[in-house]
Amino acid sequence: MSILAIGTVAFDVIETPFKSAEQVLGGSATYITLAARYFTDPVRLVAVVGNDFPESYINILRDQGVDLGGLEVDAEGKTFAWGGRYHYDLNQRDTLYTHLNVLETFDPVVPEAYRKSRVVCLGNLDPDIQRRVLDQMDGPELVVCDTMNFWIENTPQSLRMLLKRIDCLIINDSEARELAEEPNLIVAARLIRAMGPRVLVIKKGEHGAMLFIDDVVFVAPAYPLEDIQDPTGAGDVFMGGFAGYIAREEHINTEALKRAVIYGSAMASFSVERFGPDRLLDLTEEEINTRLDAFRDLSTIPTIVPLVGITP
Amino acid sequence: MSILAIGTVAFDVIETPFKSAEQVLGGSATYITLAARYFTDPVRLVAVVGNDFPESYINILRDQGVDLGGLEVDAEGKTFAWGGRYHYDLNQRDTLYTHLNVLETFDPVVPEAYRKSRVVCLGNLDPDIQRRVLDQMDGPELVVCDTMNFWIENTPQSLRMLLKRIDCLIINDSEARELAEEPNLIVAARLIRAMGPRVLVIKKGEHGAMLFIDDVVFVAPAYPLEDIQDPTGAGDVFMGGFAGYIAREEHINTEALKRAVIYGSAMASFSVERFGPDRLLDLTEEEINTRLDAFRDLSTIPTIVPLVGITP
Repeated sequence: MSILAIGTVAFDVIETPFKSAEQVLGGSATYITLAARYFTDPVRLVAVVGNDFPESYINILRDQGVDLGGLEVDAEGKTFAWGGRYHYDLNQRDTLYTHLNVLETFDPVVPEAYRKSRVVCLGNLDPDIQRRVLDQMDGPELVVCDTMNFWIENTPQSLRMLLKRIDCLIINDSEARELAEEPNLIVAARLIRAMGPRVLVIKKGEHGAMLFIDDVVFVAPAYPLEDIQDPTGAGDVFMGGFAGYIAREEHINTEALKRAVIYGSAMASFSVERFGPDRLLDLTEEEINTRLDAFRDLSTIPTIVPLVGITP
Repeated sequence: MSILAIGTVAFDVIETPFKSAEQVLGGSATYITLAARYFTDPVRLVAVVGNDFPESYINILRDQGVDLGGLEVDAEGKTFAWGGRYHYDLNQRDTLYTHLNVLETFDPVVPEAYRKSRVVCLGNLDPDIQRRVLDQMDGPELVVCDTMNFWIENTPQSLRMLLKRIDCLIINDSEARELAEEPNLIVAARLIRAMGPRVLVIKKGEHGAMLFIDDVVFVAPAYPLEDIQDPTGAGDVFMGGFAGYIAREEHINTEALKRAVIYGSAMASFSVERFGPDRLLDLTEEEINTRLDAFRDLSTIPTIVPLVGITP
C-alpha cells in the first residue's frame, strides 16, 4: 500500500577510516525511500533538489521504483549538501558542514495524487516543513516522524506542535533523553508519549532498538556486525524499513509494529555494510529473509521451566 | 548442585540521590552468593573479613542459606571497605575510596569439602588470588570469572594467565573494549575468546547483555525499570544468578547458558530496585517466575511471513 516520504535529497561528503568520497547521493528521503521500496508500492518522495542535481541520481531512484512525482527541481539554487567525518570507531562523527541551499526556501507541495497515502514518513527536517506536509494530507492511517537534536534545541515550540499530530516518533536514545530532559530512558519514553505520539521507537545503534506502545515494551537486538563500512543514513533506513513494512501490513497493530522494528533493524544492518546507499541498491529477497531469521535466532529465549520450591 | 564463589565481603558506603548509608553489607562474594542461593544448594563462599565484621551480617548470609565454611575472619585486620557516590542519572559513579585492609594479605584456602564444587565463580579480585583458588579446585565443570578495568590495566600478565584457565568471562562493555583494545564489541568478543574463555558474557547495563559461545550470539534485553534505587552489586548479582542457574542445569550447553543470561539479568533487575542487597533478601519464587515471563514478552518477535516477490 502507499507510503509518502518527505525529507532531504542531498549531496553528501563522507569520510570514513576506509573510504572518502564527495557528491555521494544522500539525504533522509533518499535513504527512507530506497529502504521502503522493498516492502510496498507506491513509494512516493516529496523533496527538493537544485539545478546541479544530476540526471544519473534521479535515474538511480527511479530505477529502484521510487515515485518521483513530488521531487521538485529548484532552478534557482543548489542541492542541499552535508559533509561528515567518522572517527576511527565509527560511533562518533563530526559534521564538516551543512549547506541548506534550496532547503532555505523549500515549501513542500504534496501532489494531488499523493494526498491519500496510507503511511506518511516525515524524515528529519524543520518541524514547520513537516507540519506543512501534514496539512496537505487526507487522513493518513499512520504518521511516522523523525527529528534531531538541532530541532529539539532550536525550534522546541514548533516541534511540540508537530508531536501532537503524529502517531509514531522514531528517534535515537540521546535525542530521547534530550527531548524529555530525563536520563532514564524508560521514564523519557513515558514523558515523550505524553507529548503526543502513541508509538515511540528509540534507536540505540549497536544496542538495538526499543518500541513503546500502550503498556508494551519491545526490545529488538542489533545485528552483530564486525565490519561496518559507513553508518550514514542508517537511522533513515531504519525508518524506511519500518514504515515500508507497516504500509504492507493489513492491520497496523502492536504485533505489526514489532515486526516493523525488526525489518527496520535488518535494513539498517544492511545499509552500514557498504558505503553510502550502495547496499540498498542490490538487496535480494533471500538476503532480507535470511537476516530476519538471524534476528530471531539472536533473541529467542529457550523454553524455561518455572522455578519450584526455591525459597528457603 | 554445588557452586563455590570467591570474592570480597565488604563494608560499603553508598551515596545515591535517594539515600546514603555507611557500613552497608557489600562485596562481590556477598552479592554473588545472595543471588545464586535462589537456584542451587550448596552455595559456598570463600572470602575474608576483619575483626570488625558484625555477627549480624554473618547471620544475614547464613539465614539466606549461604555456606560460610570458607569465610575466614582475620583477627589482625579490618574488613575491606569501599565507598561510592552515584550521579543524578545513576549511570555514573565516583569511587570515594577503596580500603583493601584484610585483602592485602588474603591467601584463600578452599576447604577440603569445597574442592569438588561443580561451578566456580571467581568474583572480581586480584587475578593472582583468583588463580590460587583454581589451583585448589578438583576439576570443576564450569569456571566463571569477573574482572575489572583496574586489573586489565595494572596486572595484564596475570590476567592473561587466568583467562587461559577459565570457561566463561563475564565483563561489562567498556571492560571488553579495553581488554581487547578494540571499539567494535563484536570484534572485541572474538579477540577476548581467543585469549581463553570459550564463553563470554558482555553486560551492557540498561542495554542488556550479550552471550557469545561457538558461533552463537545471544542478545538479552534489560528489564525496563523506571525506578532504580541503587546499582551497587548489579554486576555481581548477574553473575550469581547466571552461575547459580547453571549449577542447577543437568547439561551445561548453549541453551542452558542462554537461560542463565536471562536469570542473571532478572536477578540484577531486582537487585537495583532497592538499596544495597536488600531486595535479594526477600524475593519469592513467584516474583522470579513472573519476571522471567516479562523477559520473554520483551523480546519475543511475532511470527513473520517471509517476503515473496519484492525485488523489482
